[in-house]
Amino acid sequence: MTHRFTLRVYYEDTDLAGIVYYANYLKFIERARSEWIRTLGIDQREMKEETGTVFAVRRLEADYLHPARFDDELEVQTTTEAVTGARIVLRQHVLREGEVLFTAHVTIVAINETGHPARLPANIRRQMH
Amino acid sequence: MTHRFTLRVYYEDTDLAGIVYYANYLKFIERARSEWIRTLGIDQREMKEETGTVFAVRRLEADYLHPARFDDELEVQTTTEAVTGARIVLRQHVLREGEVLFTAHVTIVAINETGHPARLPANIRRQMH
Amino acid sequence: MTHRFTLRVYYEDTDLAGIVYYANYLKFIERARSEWIRTLGIDQREMKEETGTVFAVRRLEADYLHPARFDDELEVQTTTEAVTGARIVLRQHVLREGEVLFTAHVTIVAINETGHPARLPANIRRQMH
Amino acid sequence: MTHRFTLRVYYEDTDLAGIVYYANYLKFIERARSEWIRTLGIDQREMKEETGTVFAVRRLEADYLHPARFDDELEVQTTTEAVTGARIVLRQHVLREGEVLFTAHVTIVAINETGHPARLPANIRRQMH
Repeated sequence: MTHRFTLRVYYEDTDLAGIVYYANYLKFIERARSEWIRTLGIDQREMKEETGTVFAVRRLEADYLHPARFDDELEVQTTTEAVTGARIVLRQHVLREGEVLFTAHVTIVAINETGHPARLPANIRRQMH
Repeated sequence: MTHRFTLRVYYEDTDLAGIVYYANYLKFIERARSEWIRTLGIDQREMKEETGTVFAVRRLEADYLHPARFDDELEVQTTTEAVTGARIVLRQHVLREGEVLFTAHVTIVAINETGHPARLPANIRRQMH
Repeated sequence: MTHRFTLRVYYEDTDLAGIVYYANYLKFIERARSEWIRTLGIDQREMKEETGTVFAVRRLEADYLHPARFDDELEVQTTTEAVTGARIVLRQHVLREGEVLFTAHVTIVAINETGHPARLPANIRRQMH
Repeated sequence: MTHRFTLRVYYEDTDLAGIVYYANYLKFIERARSEWIRTLGIDQREMKEETGTVFAVRRLEADYLHPARFDDELEVQTTTEAVTGARIVLRQHVLREGEVLFTAHVTIVAINETGHPARLPANIRRQMH
């Protein structure tokens, strides 16, 4: 039940050390989450317009194991670790040719327009059952 | 009547070529425009909340003359070139120790929530008089 | 002889106006150029490591016609307009379902490690013939 | 012995939810670390050019408590928690008017050009004594 998403490293992702800038891994795993959410049949744009609800990251634990470089083809693997009514914990790896470069635990919540917690969509809560 | 804004180049701004990534100059000059708009007594957040109006770039002509590097202290100079009821053209330079590294003509419009053109705030239109 | 590249708009690309932040179109068209260069048989990473040469944008003229939004699937079309020994001018469009949202003329040069102009690779110069 | 760094939230930092995009807090705290390193008398550019050494983040634990918004003035507070010969752990808070919005533990190492661990500069190691 692992979702897989591939991406390419471009100039915009690198820094002067010649490797991917550390904040950009968070962009990579967010792209993967957006694609994973789409596969669950959730339209994030519709959800925002109709209910004012968006997903937000509440907590992140990340380990930077090996640097990704310009032109690398990377795979992001996303697995659900835990779901309650209000939050979901994902495990996300970024790999290059099978080697894990970056790994994170990400806690996601849903929030409404006033920034308060909202119930996660049923299609998300259903992930663990 | 030139507005001056200084900024520092950080890791996030550079790419593997060791210089500032070309899209990031647009961030630099947008920061300077936001600070210039503040000096005109316009609160962009209030403007958006109360009237749904935001500024948008319609056209950009940019010349990249010399690269900026990590840790450089840069100055953005912003000058008004022309204003009509609907659009304003700015000239913006990015300098390092007096040397122009980047220069742009930027055409700005105001748009409402549906994306249609809105009248520029009076404090902006007044700039040329 | 138009190169086509598709991409998705993610959260990272948007701003509080709910549309793609204006600097990010430059990222989109740079990704497309990197993929186009790859199709010409040029390995940018190898080029940098072996000869110290990288591509740099010298001039940009861009028109923002309609805003792209979160979750849009966009196509970048890249066409060569002119090539000399030292520089190449590209025309790049960003489209959504056939509608042009953004269009740019981009002048590219090759520069060596000291930042001085280098001869463009033969595979690039050959584009116009 | 807390280092303080202030910054403004600009358009580039926000996303369509109207708040600061989650990856951008990592940019904010990196800017603060760069300024903190400067106050220790370390020139990161010189360090890279002369010894090939750069700082890299090895691990990050981050809690997102309250969202920052466009135009907010934020303060980043940086405190050293632990230093060994090879790594340093920092505690970094992002605050708005005294309220903590974001907090992180960041483990930093020094790496050389081949990506292998290097000894931290003496000025850094000296921080805990």
